[in-house]
Amino acid sequence: MKKIAVILSGAGVFDGAEIHEAVLALHAIEKAGASWHCFAPNMNQHHVINHLTGEEMPETRNVLVEAARIARGNIEDIATLNATDYDGLLLPGGFGAAKNLSDFAFAGPNCTIHPDVKRVCQQFAEEEKPAGYLCISPALIPLIYGEGAKGTIGNDPETAKAFNQMGGEHIECPVDDFVFDQERCLLSTPAYMLAGSISEAAAGIDKLVQQLVKLA
Amino acid sequence: MKKIAVILSGAGVFDGAEIHEAVLALHAIEKAGASWHCFAPNMNQHHVINHLTGEEMPETRNVLVEAARIARGNIEDIATLNATDYDGLLLPGGFGAAKNLSDFAFAGPNCTIHPDVKRVCQQFAEEEKPAGYLCISPALIPLIYGEGAKGTIGNDPETAKAFNQMGGEHIECPVDDFVFDQERCLLSTPAYMLAGSISEAAAGIDKLVQQLVKLA
Repeated sequence: MKKIAVILSGAGVFDGAEIHEAVLALHAIEKAGASWHCFAPNMNQHHVINHLTGEEMPETRNVLVEAARIARGNIEDIATLNATDYDGLLLPGGFGAAKNLSDFAFAGPNCTIHPDVKRVCQQFAEEEKPAGYLCISPALIPLIYGEGAKGTIGNDPETAKAFNQMGGEHIECPVDDFVFDQERCLLSTPAYMLAGSISEAAAGIDKLVQQLVKLA
Repeated sequence: MKKIAVILSGAGVFDGAEIHEAVLALHAIEKAGASWHCFAPNMNQHHVINHLTGEEMPETRNVLVEAARIARGNIEDIATLNATDYDGLLLPGGFGAAKNLSDFAFAGPNCTIHPDVKRVCQQFAEEEKPAGYLCISPALIPLIYGEGAKGTIGNDPETAKAFNQMGGEHIECPVDDFVFDQERCLLSTPAYMLAGSISEAAAGIDKLVQQLVKLA
């Protein structure tokens, strides 16, 4: 059975991994006949957002511990992740990808990536294993794959511009499809950058994951 | 479009709503052509569990605020929920149903239900609107529907015994099916009481929700 590593960034769209995308992604991996293996960085979240009010809460939460909620405890520290042991990689979105895995939400095109996340993503790229980036997580693509890497990150002009400024080639894509950079074995789909419902997010995610597992 | 009210109990299998079940349930409602409307009690969780270690954390979290993570902020206080405005009801599982919505996890057959949750569930029963209970949440069924109400709550003998002691009639059911108490327009499925994967949980939930929306 093909093994897909999934990097989570917490549990909640505003400060962690987008929960619908994460669950849809894990389910899609199962439906495609592969197994999922969750990982997250063992670090404090950038902050904690009250998802009812949108306001910041005076709390400290750990990315790995909160991501474990999505994975039902079935998750490991990303420090232990070696691409050699897996057939493909998948990153759901949510602000956690832009606040915890990287600082794209604050630094835009000048962002940096968490060292372990960068190491792992680069290893999958170097081993030419397929990788799928959902929603806002394609913000990491230019820093991993370098000049000319193709990806989609929704149709917000500022975000697409930042993607291009970092050296990527942004391609607009409908929510029910994905962009495939064949040369780099690299897939991306807008998910909740565009989706207005779970079904819309599911359409693109299912299609991307099916292709990801096929390539793995 | 038919409107289904969904009661969440937090966000995480060990102290709140089971995240996979909740997302699968919301997605299933969309796929069946209805709309979902999330509610949760505005109260502190019974406790907070570290989902990585299983240990209790010295924290206080609010059920409604945490459930908002699953609903992407699209959720209301259950105190405002009137069954008259909706066509059906759905309760995902997770320990939150047995620790926050009720105290079944601690009191077993002597449990009581949170007053607003009880009021709402009883109102759906009285108005003869269909209601679906997933996983451990069928523990509430005997207290809502009274003597002889049929439901399934997995195949753990102690849990099934408690269901019967409260006056219910427990029926064993495979994970990919549901129990239908036709007289009461009442549906239940084991989900993660039995499921070993997201796909297994999805099979029963999809089937139950399809029927729920049909009856609504």
